Amino acid sequence: MTSSDDFFQGFFDWAATTPPDILIQQESMLRASECFANPSSVHKAGIQAKSLLQEARERCAKSLGVSPNNLIFTSGGTESNHWPFLSLLQRPKTKFSDKSQGTIIISAIEHPAIREMAESMKNLGYNIISIKPERNGIVNAEKLLEKVNENTLLVCLMAVNNETGAIQPIYKVADELIKMCAGKKKPKFHVDAVQAIGKIPLLLNYEGIDTVAISAHKLRGPKGMGLLYLAKRQEPFLRGGGQEIGLRAGTENVAGAISMAACLEKYALTPINRTDSSIPNQKAFNKYKEQIESTFQFIEQISNIKGCKLIPEVRKDLEPAENVKLFSPWIVQASFENIPGEVMVRALSERGFSISTGSACSTKKLSRPVLESMDIKKAQASTAVRFSFGAESAKDDIQSLIQALNQIREIFKV
Amino acid sequence: MTSSDDFFQGFFDWAATTPPDILIQQESMLRASECFANPSSVHKAGIQAKSLLQEARERCAKSLGVSPNNLIFTSGGTESNHWPFLSLLQRPKTKFSDKSQGTIIISAIEHPAIREMAESMKNLGYNIISIKPERNGIVNAEKLLEKVNENTLLVCLMAVNNETGAIQPIYKVADELIKMCAGKKKPKFHVDAVQAIGKIPLLLNYEGIDTVAISAHKLRGPKGMGLLYLAKRQEPFLRGGGQEIGLRAGTENVAGAISMAACLEKYALTPINRTDSSIPNQKAFNKYKEQIESTFQFIEQISNIKGCKLIPEVRKDLEPAENVKLFSPWIVQASFENIPGEVMVRALSERGFSISTGSACSTKKLSRPVLESMDIKKAQASTAVRFSFGAESAKDDIQSLIQALNQIREIFKV
Repeated sequence: MTSSDDFFQGFFDWAATTPPDILIQQESMLRASECFANPSSVHKAGIQAKSLLQEARERCAKSLGVSPNNLIFTSGGTESNHWPFLSLLQRPKTKFSDKSQGTIIISAIEHPAIREMAESMKNLGYNIISIKPERNGIVNAEKLLEKVNENTLLVCLMAVNNETGAIQPIYKVADELIKMCAGKKKPKFHVDAVQAIGKIPLLLNYEGIDTVAISAHKLRGPKGMGLLYLAKRQEPFLRGGGQEIGLRAGTENVAGAISMAACLEKYALTPINRTDSSIPNQKAFNKYKEQIESTFQFIEQISNIKGCKLIPEVRKDLEPAENVKLFSPWIVQASFENIPGEVMVRALSERGFSISTGSACSTKKLSRPVLESMDIKKAQASTAVRFSFGAESAKDDIQSLIQALNQIREIFKV
Repeated sequence: MTSSDDFFQGFFDWAATTPPDILIQQESMLRASECFANPSSVHKAGIQAKSLLQEARERCAKSLGVSPNNLIFTSGGTESNHWPFLSLLQRPKTKFSDKSQGTIIISAIEHPAIREMAESMKNLGYNIISIKPERNGIVNAEKLLEKVNENTLLVCLMAVNNETGAIQPIYKVADELIKMCAGKKKPKFHVDAVQAIGKIPLLLNYEGIDTVAISAHKLRGPKGMGLLYLAKRQEPFLRGGGQEIGLRAGTENVAGAISMAACLEKYALTPINRTDSSIPNQKAFNKYKEQIESTFQFIEQISNIKGCKLIPEVRKDLEPAENVKLFSPWIVQASFENIPGEVMVRALSERGFSISTGSACSTKKLSRPVLESMDIKKAQASTAVRFSFGAESAKDDIQSLIQALNQIREIFKV
């Protein structure tokens, strides 16, 4: 850890947000200031701004292994996750056999941006089906797919769960949706990849995946910036100035876009489907490999703390190869008997460490819907916390965290 | 004009966007980087970030003369303008006497973010009524109000039109809505103040106004940042992590918020209802006064150019006091006979000047709905362009613009 990285020493909450790359942000802000005009303006200054925005889009596309035409800039992961729901609203009214406006299938472990949004859609007459995961935190694709029928308009399954790190069977769902719906209209398939893009090997433009939500600040980029990957054009519901080929209105955040592009280039794992293999991000791949080992070690060490249980427990017993396939090394969930999650967060905070209970986005709610959907008992769920790592999490810093956990365990005897 | 301001020499498109205040953006980015955690996290780092966000909200509130509890941060003017439309969608279904989902009244001169959004609402069964302005570009409040009935859910009238600078009778509409609806449920009244906030004296928390849209980048702030003023809590339709007291989901853009706050403090006109009169922004007020004179002079000078007509023409004949009440000094629309608007924009661009035809947000569309709604003939509308000024527009720069207009007039003889 270099001294310039001191500002995130003790930070083990990388799934909530990541320390911004200050140099990239500074350079991006200055470049965007030089081309400050509105990218929609047709004068020279506007054309310069538009060309900088297009450069950002092309660089993001290259890092993600997709075409720039498939990417639209948004204000972040939440907006990108809302987009496919809103797009349903512009469809001409259809009568479905169940008299609803159509069915939306989501997993019970989706981020609140999806779960709560689905609740909102109920008001408008949509039928929402929520699929529980197995006890390992992974949704059984068959169980999800058996709910799909001719009324289904949208299926949402995240790539990596933000609380447990469990990797979801998105490719299987994509494959089966195509098979099941051959000759019929396929429901749209949306993937929240906020915890996955750039962090685990991922196939973004996989056939059958229609939309993907991506956030900049989970990968050292600016907050308030994101991308929506759109496999094919879908009509938007929100409208305005026609920016982003008519799909996302509002004056474009050029500084944010160019900053996101630079962060993806520097920090994102090269997508596994990359056809242009000339510039794989070897450094990011090495960091990912190192984190796998580091997380195995971390899991072993906390498992030795009295009263600590991995969530899901099975994670500590899996073969390494299987483990890597099923869980992101960047996120570990564990419970500590008799230590309420909030108490653990505060006790660690006092010792200079930042972790969280569930997602930062649900800290105000005491319930733990993701854990409950995995049939984790309330008593255990209330003592669960999330550790999340970043490429710059230093080994000695992780060792200090383990020490602090042991100290706290001593205070709160089981 | 100082040399550091050279980068916006020749820029007369301040209604499209404004040159960012680089120092403010840089400082804000650095401050936010020091408190980079997710403001929703409960550890110390998260609490620091939340406190910086709250500081930003309080500073914005002070500059706008409102309570911080009435402000929620958004991704910009467009999102803030969409919010009241979306909020309608969370209401329990009501049967209205006209069998619609309810009526939305907008003016025909609203920004595309409102006009196009209203179109989208038609898909969902809402009845949309569009009110034409008078020939002077100003909506007649009575004509709007006579359409209000028990089916009306939302009324939208912008504060300052983005193409003509015409100031709309928002206070009258607010007053009358209260009177008309005494004892009944008042429709929500939304004001798009993107071209008005900080630029003309404005009463933001005026009784009867329910929501106001505000953009940061129109006042030297960052793109991708805005505010929604909410007089009273209204339920949101878009949901997620519960940020912004549950009204706007998504990890908060702390750097953008603090940057917007600093720009409002530095550049925004003090609101006229400010109770705490100890720190009025005298500098901004002086700039506004100077611009009034400067715009009168500009109008006189371009009126002397052969074939040039002000839009609306009446603007050049009004008494100064009346003129200031009816038109923002920051925006001037005029047509140049036989010179298509796009040609004028390009000819000026080649000479180093940036202006626009209508709003930057509708440059792709050749129609000019705002001018058409004012009964400007197509032939004239197609030769109309917008000049928009900023507090830093220098007098000698304006004189060079006039010279360039005269040169172009010479080439395209009437």
